[in-house]
Amino acid sequence: MKNEFEFIETLRRKYNLSKIGDDCAVLPKDSKTDLVITTDLLVEDIDFKLEWSKPEFIGHKSLAVSLSDVAAMGAKPVWAITSIGVPEAIWKTGFGEKFYDGYMSLAKKFGVELIGGDVSRTPDKIVIDSIVAGEVKKGKAVLRSSAKVGDLIFVSGKLGGAAIALKCLENGEKYESSKYKKLLRQQLAPNPQIKTGQIIGTKNLATAMIDLSDGLSSDLAHLCRESKVGAKIFADKIPIESQISDFKFLTEDKFSIALDGGEDFELLFTVNPKKYFQVENELKKHECFHIGEVTANAEIIELIANGKSEILTAKGFRHF
Amino acid sequence: MKNEFEFIETLRRKYNLSKIGDDCAVLPKDSKTDLVITTDLLVEDIDFKLEWSKPEFIGHKSLAVSLSDVAAMGAKPVWAITSIGVPEAIWKTGFGEKFYDGYMSLAKKFGVELIGGDVSRTPDKIVIDSIVAGEVKKGKAVLRSSAKVGDLIFVSGKLGGAAIALKCLENGEKYESSKYKKLLRQQLAPNPQIKTGQIIGTKNLATAMIDLSDGLSSDLAHLCRESKVGAKIFADKIPIESQISDFKFLTEDKFSIALDGGEDFELLFTVNPKKYFQVENELKKHECFHIGEVTANAEIIELIANGKSEILTAKGFRHF
Repeated sequence: MKNEFEFIETLRRKYNLSKIGDDCAVLPKDSKTDLVITTDLLVEDIDFKLEWSKPEFIGHKSLAVSLSDVAAMGAKPVWAITSIGVPEAIWKTGFGEKFYDGYMSLAKKFGVELIGGDVSRTPDKIVIDSIVAGEVKKGKAVLRSSAKVGDLIFVSGKLGGAAIALKCLENGEKYESSKYKKLLRQQLAPNPQIKTGQIIGTKNLATAMIDLSDGLSSDLAHLCRESKVGAKIFADKIPIESQISDFKFLTEDKFSIALDGGEDFELLFTVNPKKYFQVENELKKHECFHIGEVTANAEIIELIANGKSEILTAKGFRHF
Repeated sequence: MKNEFEFIETLRRKYNLSKIGDDCAVLPKDSKTDLVITTDLLVEDIDFKLEWSKPEFIGHKSLAVSLSDVAAMGAKPVWAITSIGVPEAIWKTGFGEKFYDGYMSLAKKFGVELIGGDVSRTPDKIVIDSIVAGEVKKGKAVLRSSAKVGDLIFVSGKLGGAAIALKCLENGEKYESSKYKKLLRQQLAPNPQIKTGQIIGTKNLATAMIDLSDGLSSDLAHLCRESKVGAKIFADKIPIESQISDFKFLTEDKFSIALDGGEDFELLFTVNPKKYFQVENELKKHECFHIGEVTANAEIIELIANGKSEILTAKGFRHF
């Protein structure tokens, strides 16, 4: 059985779909501008649980995950389309209104216009499809496929927060009564790195970029595969959510959570070494961590820990 | 409880969403072109049943319903995005590959490029979100909201076929063994009226247009509401699928099926009377029926049968 990445790769080759394979498709808009566009399907009990979240958070997250893809192209989000399918019993509770309260509040923050959508009944689970389009200067979308050997690898923030929050929710933590509300919101209503993405895009800081949705080990592998390069990352440089030590029930070690935990929605980007100081300067108001470098060992990712190198396998989220 | 139309109208007012309310949103592209874009969410057991259909047909229909919205703007379809969510057991049967066989075959027919999508697992039902964008000369998208009193009302083909086919499937008819395959395909794999829509658009034939997805009584009501007009239609002019008389088990009268049966994906459009002969001439290779006229009785639709007038209430498909 093909997993979803193999399936998409097969489609891409079979039908010669050249615009598929990045965070967003890039389309010409006018003589100065390209349009970037992305879609994310969110399914109840796969991507979220109603009992852990609330409709406003689900609305926020639906938009946030697609905004994150637009950020990963270095683009400015402009418009959005959202389809929701809701079982009748949930519809009757006013789910729709509350969903759009959360959705529109985030849309307003980033000046995104909702231009369309569809509303459907479903037999028993909520489904949401979120589409966001952004604009970027012609030819300047930051792709996954243009990392070069010798580039430095950066992440835009601490990792593992969303995965720790998920473990807490699975362990019975309730948002309303929790003293870890801020941490839980990293899972339930994450903040896309729109400003960081736009600075990277407009200032030409990165050679390649991807957002961390599946997990660092998986998303770095996607970037390396598309760029036909490898990578070396340093365990002691990986920024890990500091509250991790509060949760004694966690059985995974902190590196596994930071490497394989998904949904941080931070940006992973590669930088020509000559631009190191420019990145530090332009992004000084934003967290930014140098975690490794791009190598010539195509599709091989090495993790350097305690002076030893091990090959890292992608263990991020997969549907199939 | 709000139905989906009331819900969307509430959102539109609350958040001042000016691009919502037509078959497609219209966005400026470049100095000569507008982009039109639509989305349709299809849910297993609401919009289709796997046991009645096959994955190739479901792929075809997913694209066709959105192509029909683009046709209703008088636009040329250009690119598409599709997200699919599939339960693991169905995924293992190769559903994805067969779905895209049907989808891509229709995409190729109309020169539509698949530029993106998402693949997700679902707990137990298939869901599909289909997005199609088209292009139209700037300012020339044919809206629902611009019908004028005195305009003639046309439909692009016979009505009721998809609804009759649905009744046959509900009555146990199997596609593979049926002698009514062509009729059943009107429900399972409908043909969007792309060419008719483009002729109407490029030749400026219509003042307003909508596609018949919910049913004539509902979709004419949508057009009248957006245009702030009423309509009068003549029972003896409504073109009804001729095979209807083959199916003795049907309990509904043929007018109900033609008026309220959904999913015909024909075009309903209004024409300035001065253009009557131009419409006949330009569309002579395509079926086209004059069924009524636009009146000043805002949002009132009259059905004239046997010389008597009755007020028609919208009885098309509603999710909630």
